[in-house]
Amino acid sequence: MSYFNIDKINYEGTTSSNPFAFRHYNAEEVVLGKTMKEHLRFALAYWHTMTQEGDDPFGSGTNLRTWEGKTPLETAKNRVDAFFELLTKLGVEYFCFHDVDIAPQGESLEEFFENLDIITDMMKEKMDETGIKLLWNTQNAFSHPRYLNGAATSNNADVFAYTAAQVKKTLDLSKKLGGENVVFWGGREGYESILNTNMELELDNLARLYKMAIAYSEKIGHKVQFLIEPKPKEPMTHQYDYDAATAMAFLQKYGLTDHFKLNLEGNHATLAGHTFEHELRVARSYNALGSIDANHAETMVGWDTDEFPTNVLDTTLTMYEILENGGIAPGGINFDAKVRRTSFEMDDLVLAHIAGMDTYARGLKGAAKLKEDKYFENLIADRYASYTEGIGAKIVAEEVTLESLTEYALENQNIQNKSNRLEYVKSVLNDYLV
Amino acid sequence: MSYFNIDKINYEGTTSSNPFAFRHYNAEEVVLGKTMKEHLRFALAYWHTMTQEGDDPFGSGTNLRTWEGKTPLETAKNRVDAFFELLTKLGVEYFCFHDVDIAPQGESLEEFFENLDIITDMMKEKMDETGIKLLWNTQNAFSHPRYLNGAATSNNADVFAYTAAQVKKTLDLSKKLGGENVVFWGGREGYESILNTNMELELDNLARLYKMAIAYSEKIGHKVQFLIEPKPKEPMTHQYDYDAATAMAFLQKYGLTDHFKLNLEGNHATLAGHTFEHELRVARSYNALGSIDANHAETMVGWDTDEFPTNVLDTTLTMYEILENGGIAPGGINFDAKVRRTSFEMDDLVLAHIAGMDTYARGLKGAAKLKEDKYFENLIADRYASYTEGIGAKIVAEEVTLESLTEYALENQNIQNKSNRLEYVKSVLNDYLV
Amino acid sequence: MSYFNIDKINYEGTTSSNPFAFRHYNAEEVVLGKTMKEHLRFALAYWHTMTQEGDDPFGSGTNLRTWEGKTPLETAKNRVDAFFELLTKLGVEYFCFHDVDIAPQGESLEEFFENLDIITDMMKEKMDETGIKLLWNTQNAFSHPRYLNGAATSNNADVFAYTAAQVKKTLDLSKKLGGENVVFWGGREGYESILNTNMELELDNLARLYKMAIAYSEKIGHKVQFLIEPKPKEPMTHQYDYDAATAMAFLQKYGLTDHFKLNLEGNHATLAGHTFEHELRVARSYNALGSIDANHAETMVGWDTDEFPTNVLDTTLTMYEILENGGIAPGGINFDAKVRRTSFEMDDLVLAHIAGMDTYARGLKGAAKLKEDKYFENLIADRYASYTEGIGAKIVAEEVTLESLTEYALENQNIQNKSNRLEYVKSVLNDYLV
Amino acid sequence: MSYFNIDKINYEGTTSSNPFAFRHYNAEEVVLGKTMKEHLRFALAYWHTMTQEGDDPFGSGTNLRTWEGKTPLETAKNRVDAFFELLTKLGVEYFCFHDVDIAPQGESLEEFFENLDIITDMMKEKMDETGIKLLWNTQNAFSHPRYLNGAATSNNADVFAYTAAQVKKTLDLSKKLGGENVVFWGGREGYESILNTNMELELDNLARLYKMAIAYSEKIGHKVQFLIEPKPKEPMTHQYDYDAATAMAFLQKYGLTDHFKLNLEGNHATLAGHTFEHELRVARSYNALGSIDANHAETMVGWDTDEFPTNVLDTTLTMYEILENGGIAPGGINFDAKVRRTSFEMDDLVLAHIAGMDTYARGLKGAAKLKEDKYFENLIADRYASYTEGIGAKIVAEEVTLESLTEYALENQNIQNKSNRLEYVKSVLNDYLV
Repeated sequence: MSYFNIDKINYEGTTSSNPFAFRHYNAEEVVLGKTMKEHLRFALAYWHTMTQEGDDPFGSGTNLRTWEGKTPLETAKNRVDAFFELLTKLGVEYFCFHDVDIAPQGESLEEFFENLDIITDMMKEKMDETGIKLLWNTQNAFSHPRYLNGAATSNNADVFAYTAAQVKKTLDLSKKLGGENVVFWGGREGYESILNTNMELELDNLARLYKMAIAYSEKIGHKVQFLIEPKPKEPMTHQYDYDAATAMAFLQKYGLTDHFKLNLEGNHATLAGHTFEHELRVARSYNALGSIDANHAETMVGWDTDEFPTNVLDTTLTMYEILENGGIAPGGINFDAKVRRTSFEMDDLVLAHIAGMDTYARGLKGAAKLKEDKYFENLIADRYASYTEGIGAKIVAEEVTLESLTEYALENQNIQNKSNRLEYVKSVLNDYLV
Repeated sequence: MSYFNIDKINYEGTTSSNPFAFRHYNAEEVVLGKTMKEHLRFALAYWHTMTQEGDDPFGSGTNLRTWEGKTPLETAKNRVDAFFELLTKLGVEYFCFHDVDIAPQGESLEEFFENLDIITDMMKEKMDETGIKLLWNTQNAFSHPRYLNGAATSNNADVFAYTAAQVKKTLDLSKKLGGENVVFWGGREGYESILNTNMELELDNLARLYKMAIAYSEKIGHKVQFLIEPKPKEPMTHQYDYDAATAMAFLQKYGLTDHFKLNLEGNHATLAGHTFEHELRVARSYNALGSIDANHAETMVGWDTDEFPTNVLDTTLTMYEILENGGIAPGGINFDAKVRRTSFEMDDLVLAHIAGMDTYARGLKGAAKLKEDKYFENLIADRYASYTEGIGAKIVAEEVTLESLTEYALENQNIQNKSNRLEYVKSVLNDYLV
Repeated sequence: MSYFNIDKINYEGTTSSNPFAFRHYNAEEVVLGKTMKEHLRFALAYWHTMTQEGDDPFGSGTNLRTWEGKTPLETAKNRVDAFFELLTKLGVEYFCFHDVDIAPQGESLEEFFENLDIITDMMKEKMDETGIKLLWNTQNAFSHPRYLNGAATSNNADVFAYTAAQVKKTLDLSKKLGGENVVFWGGREGYESILNTNMELELDNLARLYKMAIAYSEKIGHKVQFLIEPKPKEPMTHQYDYDAATAMAFLQKYGLTDHFKLNLEGNHATLAGHTFEHELRVARSYNALGSIDANHAETMVGWDTDEFPTNVLDTTLTMYEILENGGIAPGGINFDAKVRRTSFEMDDLVLAHIAGMDTYARGLKGAAKLKEDKYFENLIADRYASYTEGIGAKIVAEEVTLESLTEYALENQNIQNKSNRLEYVKSVLNDYLV
Repeated sequence: MSYFNIDKINYEGTTSSNPFAFRHYNAEEVVLGKTMKEHLRFALAYWHTMTQEGDDPFGSGTNLRTWEGKTPLETAKNRVDAFFELLTKLGVEYFCFHDVDIAPQGESLEEFFENLDIITDMMKEKMDETGIKLLWNTQNAFSHPRYLNGAATSNNADVFAYTAAQVKKTLDLSKKLGGENVVFWGGREGYESILNTNMELELDNLARLYKMAIAYSEKIGHKVQFLIEPKPKEPMTHQYDYDAATAMAFLQKYGLTDHFKLNLEGNHATLAGHTFEHELRVARSYNALGSIDANHAETMVGWDTDEFPTNVLDTTLTMYEILENGGIAPGGINFDAKVRRTSFEMDDLVLAHIAGMDTYARGLKGAAKLKEDKYFENLIADRYASYTEGIGAKIVAEEVTLESLTEYALENQNIQNKSNRLEYVKSVLNDYLV
């Protein structure tokens, strides 16, 4: 049985006018010594692709889907089939999910866990058949009313315990499915009003949960890369993991940097007042770039739109950071993107992922050319040359003091700067857009 | 000779209609066991009060000032007299300055240092006479063209050296004047474009400068509290010290938390997408609330307006955080605020500071009443009560694991949350506004 | 049967500590010659109060409500009882609704209309019993999937027709219930992407609908004040009625100003980058201030939060504009505000409205005092005095030309401006906060 | 004498690596039946190119310029030579200026007018020699302290008169130089605080000035296109001409639409929360697209950065709107853009304009291809097809009523919408980027 009325999507090159073909993404094409698929490590997001309905705060769901069954569990099973069909047809080798995405929560936690076992059995079979892998999984500890004041940062200790149970299951499922990463997105880990908030206790508790997760993963012998996903606002007015730097402050404070890196998202970056490339660079400066959630931010609005990435300039700069990072593995590029409410047909799921994959393939090609030409590398080497010799080299070697530098400065007051020629640089960058 | 055509400003109480009187700030009035002036530790900012001209990017200076002399040095000397006159007439006991605020830079670094010595000799005399103290000083390493790409984070090592010379002088002057804190505001420590930036080297160099400053302060036997002042943008598109959390990430990474705390500013908070009370609370959670720059943010515009604080709700919440912090000393409340370009008369300098001081005095009274009534304290104790016993107490004591919590959760699935009644809480808060 | 477990809310004055009492709103108290209830003309919003569930884009509903029946129609009937109980207990005399708020849409448009008739029969009876009146009603032409591309501005003419049917019914119900205003909030009247949008046709069609509504209201002999409610974004990326000025541009272009005024909302103002008082003033400058949707904007987030108003400074400035307008009738102050998702108990509905009503009562008292003292009136008269005589009077009388003014300017180059003393003014304003 | 150490900039095609060559802008190349230069009508801005110094609110000027003379007037004359040298070398045929850009203001209005006469005599000679034309001129009525509360909207009638004198001179100079447009950018026409503002009088006065300008231009027989340039904020907290729609509301209210159109700027659009293409489309919907100020907005910061345009996607969408408008004449594309403070060398002025011109040439080529392929045209025709027949055609013909549409709706409840396939559309758009 087929849920998508299409054949496998093939690479047909830029001359193709077939909407159901890749024109840039050519999985096996070698770029800078690796295949495109090794560079890009695309993943599909279960939530946006399989369970979101096309509703928004002002309107109900619009999506037309072919996998509705007679019971929630039947629907859940149909979704697994449909999802692996889509992964296969797109040639995507990784996926990501929250616990509640894949299985009905039923009437009790026991029932939920059983449902998760049933569905992940089915998934495991599919994974073995297809070679598709789990990039990361996580728990949804923010949608249910019990989480209205947060999960690990709830004011209610029973809620903390419930969260812990979900986290344990996340790790058990990760081990079962061979997941490479486990993500924590702090859905409602933040606060609504400072007036009624004990921030210190809440942050301590959050760290306590993370430490338990590390301990448990070690106990079960399942070594994963843990990832925090920063977001500044929404749903909470103030989210604790505001941006990459805020997450790093937290991880350092609680001694968690050995086990945690960051899963960064484009739209979350702009909501925090940063470009995505800024967030990637910050993470790299802490050796903490773990994985990315690829989407496009509509910067004229103030909420998370999770659009499919279609801006070539953005993906070029993103892929440049990833190449500079020596790649993104064991992380990947997860399409944390949803079709617009007005793209409600089954075909749109396919077309939207093609759009995202082609746009990232364009970005990879452009970034590779930048690397090959050493465009930024030379630019930066020239600009900072003064730190490779003379007083600059001594500064870097930490062989100077305020006193010795004062002496130097008194002798060298006629300082010459050079123009950055930034207008020219940005104009040339256009030549690297594919 | 007098520069301000007013008498000393006295407290006349709320029935007074004299614009040149305090109606709320009563320096010696005891609140929660300390005098108002001990709580508030007000400081005047040399730059906004004495040297800003009332220009903006679209217009030239409007301010009418009485201290212009025949030479830059004479003007600088007149300013010292005028400044201490104002401090005295307002009854403010602290002040803050950048090096370039107080003395002409002359033709060379030597000449600048000499001018600084002359002016600080004069200041010292005034300080001895009046008992007025230096809250903090700093260096302006961002206005001169040499700093167009930053100071410690410049791509030019000669610029780094020049910065170091200014920092050494800042510390020498701090020692001379008995300064209690030294501030680093990273004027252009950030980047204009990621395309030409070596972020890692720049941040390493910034930390190197701070370490040299610590070493030198120890060498000269002048122990001060170092403070970083975060700001997210402006003048650079991306400033490295984006907000409190970002600064804490940096300080932890480079092992600087023993010597550095934060100097937080209201307007910088809102530019970063936070309330001021959020930034204060974050700093407190890292035991790093050092001092504040008090001003009002115009949240409908996207740049730093540095208005005098006149919003009572804001100052009440600010003072509550300060009381919770056990006070702000050795920091203080520095009016990093400038009169509007349309408040160009000498009297406005006086009236604006009265407005700011009265608004903070109102805030102190309101916050003290909140503390006395234990309004927030009780609210928060009730909300988090579940962490003081049972499973909550065990979580806090770190006596649980994912497994034990899972067991607990399976037994306790019927979770009860209580309404936060936030509308009611916010309504009651109005009764605490003075 | 009672849905709210409280008695009628009474005014108990500021010394009361009873949460279920007004401490400022005293309906019959006379302020500036009118009772508070005449000034304030409070209305309850059916949607937020009766039908919102406490869900958000990241979580499901939390609200606990006592009116759930066995069928949608039974629930709808229960809601009418509960709503009028709440109105009566709060002493609120006006209400507002969308068609879909009050009655189930059923399986067809006919069934929907029938349900509307049943429910409005019941409402009419309640209104006759209690004297409660309809401030305004409207149609929800944005939530159903058919409206995914807008209603009157949909690209699908069938959708336009369906909208017209809803608008006709809105007017029929308005006549039946004696409504004083009819509102159009352009839910999805805007565009998602300019790439696929014919803006000109869409705006022409919107005007066509409004003209049909005017014609029909005249035909049925039901004269109402039509109101447009501006909002800049959300749900559409670009909403056509961005703000007050944008709506006035549209109304003038299509010759609709005789029949339409504006219904302005606080949170919509700030989303558009304006203060609420700005929007009120703009509307007044076009003689188009019709009614207001009272709520509080969380300016640190980028979406509509519709909080209950609890900020006294805001309500004081709002009420000042309303007093300057000579009152808001036939419009009113509609609480377009919803309890937080964490205020999920029935009591919160009561407490939140008390908070909003008391905060507006405080605002009225403060604004009345400003009017009595002529504080702003005198300030403004002084500032603009130059336009009451000499050259200023001639400018206003339009008796000058560029040539005569050039002559004048050449004779009067020594221009004197006076300080605005804005810091002082803002400080004094605090004394008017009640 | 030469101020720029370069030869004339030639088109060398995309294979050139010469920074001082056009790679896309080929003035005489024919695109869609017109030469590139006829389409693009580029203009240079006197203020950014000749008089800005590279200062910002946190630092002094950095620009190194070769035209400094011994007196202000000598400098002003040198600038004319340098400016026409640059225009000629870039092959740009239009320019724009404010009065204060080109001539020293001297000690009196008379002296200022004399200086303007001297400089414009010189300009006229240059224009006759070179064929270069004046796109528009305007007056700077915002920088001088006299304008601290606005010009035509000042509270001081003497300031209004002074403004009128400048406007008269602007029109006299426009006639002398054959200017095609005259612009009003409301520098400080707005308000700082609503507390002290008589908005109604201020707006009436603004309209009075515009009417005098129309009358005077008719009197002197110099027919120009008047243009208002909207900007939402900065320098004033609230600018009256917030955006295109706000300006159209004003122009309609005061009956000015026959003489005024809009001069739209990219960076002003984004500060108002709009895309530039939105503002262009709105202006077109009022038949009011007059001219554009081309620059790039840094959307992550909250002030006007006026960067040179280097984003190809942006210029493609801009040029598409201009092509749809039937061109921009008698307006043009004015580079209201300044070199970064870090691009302080003379060469940067040349390189930055090449970057801007090439980016707009790319945009023109892409937009032309979109037009030739009828890509958007077909897309839009398909989407709105329902309005070309049946009930849709009747709606457009205004042959329906609420009643007839209700009848239709009752018969046609099974409404079918089609997916917008927006992800696919945006992906395809990348193929049109040149």
